Amino acid sequence: MIPIITISREFGSGGHSIGEKVAKKLEIPFYDGEIVIRVAEESGYARDLIEEQGEHTSMGNRWFDISTASAMYFQSPQDEIFLAQRRVILECAAQGPCVIVGRCSDYVLKTEGIRAMNVLIHASLENRIKRVIERYGELEEVSAKKRIAKKDKMRRTYYRYYTDEHWGNYENYDLALDSGTLGEETCVHIITELARHFE
Amino acid sequence: MIPIITISREFGSGGHSIGEKVAKKLEIPFYDGEIVIRVAEESGYARDLIEEQGEHTSMGNRWFDISTASAMYFQSPQDEIFLAQRRVILECAAQGPCVIVGRCSDYVLKTEGIRAMNVLIHASLENRIKRVIERYGELEEVSAKKRIAKKDKMRRTYYRYYTDEHWGNYENYDLALDSGTLGEETCVHIITELARHFE
Repeated sequence: MIPIITISREFGSGGHSIGEKVAKKLEIPFYDGEIVIRVAEESGYARDLIEEQGEHTSMGNRWFDISTASAMYFQSPQDEIFLAQRRVILECAAQGPCVIVGRCSDYVLKTEGIRAMNVLIHASLENRIKRVIERYGELEEVSAKKRIAKKDKMRRTYYRYYTDEHWGNYENYDLALDSGTLGEETCVHIITELARHFE
Repeated sequence: MIPIITISREFGSGGHSIGEKVAKKLEIPFYDGEIVIRVAEESGYARDLIEEQGEHTSMGNRWFDISTASAMYFQSPQDEIFLAQRRVILECAAQGPCVIVGRCSDYVLKTEGIRAMNVLIHASLENRIKRVIERYGELEEVSAKKRIAKKDKMRRTYYRYYTDEHWGNYENYDLALDSGTLGEETCVHIITELARHFE
C-alpha cells in the first residue's frame, strides 16, 4: 500500500513542486497550502497571518513583547498555530496515503507512532540560487543567496524549536535526494517508485 | 549511460552487500576487496597488512613510533596505502561504469573532476545491531554495539583525515537510503533504478 509521504526540503530545492507531482502521480492528496487554510479555519486566525507566520517560531516574536516569565505560562500565537497545524496533519494522515510538505510533519507523525515514508530534498547552494532566480525572476544572485540563507535558517530554527532535534540529519529520512544533480523529474520518479515498494 | 557508483555506508547497514547486488544487477564491476588486493600488488605491501590497515589513518600508528617532526617529512605506511588505493580507484573508474564501496571513493573521484553517483547507506543503531548479530552469530548485543561504534569511528576518522570533510553530510550524496526501514532488496532496486535514470 502507498504510504503517507512527508517531504522536508531546503529552500530552493524544488521539494514543494516535487511533492505535488508525486501526489498527482500516485493519485493521493497533497497538503501544504491546504493545511494552512484548514488551520486558519480551525484556529480562527486570519489566513494571511498564518501564511506569514506558519514557519516562524515564537522566538523573536513580532506581535507581542512577552516577558520570559509570562512566556513560561502562556503559549505564543506561533505555538498555537503549531499545535493547530499538528492537529490538522494528524487528521490528514488519518484519512490515508498522502503527501505532506514541511511543517515538521515527519516529527509530528513519528511522535504519534504513525509510520510514514520520510523524504529529504536538498541541493547545492549554487543550484538553489539558480532555481530561485529562475522562479522569482526579479532577484539578483546576491538577493537570492540572502533569501535562501534566511529561509533555511527560519525553517531550521522552527524545526529545532518544536522538535528539539536538528533539521536535516540523514538518520531521520528513509530517502534523501539531491534535486540539483538529479533533476526534478528523476526525483519524482524515484520517490514514486519507492512509495510503490514501501512496506 | 550507467554511471560510476560510489557507496558509503555505516557499519552494519548492509551497504557492502547492497553494492555487490547492484553491480550484479547492472552487470558492472564491483570493487572493494579487489581494490585491496590490487593495492597490495601495486604497493608491495603484504595483503594481510593492507586488509588490516586499509581504513586506518596514520594517527595512532601501531607500527612505528614516528615523532611529530619526522612525520612532517615522511609519509606513514597508511598514507602510502591511501595514495595507492587512490590510484587504483582512479584506474577502476577510468575503465567505465562500476560500483566502488568505501575508501573515500566519492572524494577521490570528485577531486579529479570525475562525475559519479554517490550513494549513502545508513540504518538505525538498533537495526545495525540486529544485522551484525545475525551476520557474526557469536556476538552478544553489547559486543555488537561496541564493534559498530568502533568501526564507524574508524571510518569517520579515516574520511576526515584524508578528505578534510565530515563523513555522512547529506550534501555529499545524490541518494541516501535507510536500509533498516527499507530493506536490502528495495535499496538495491532504488539504486539500480536511479542509475538507469542518471544523467
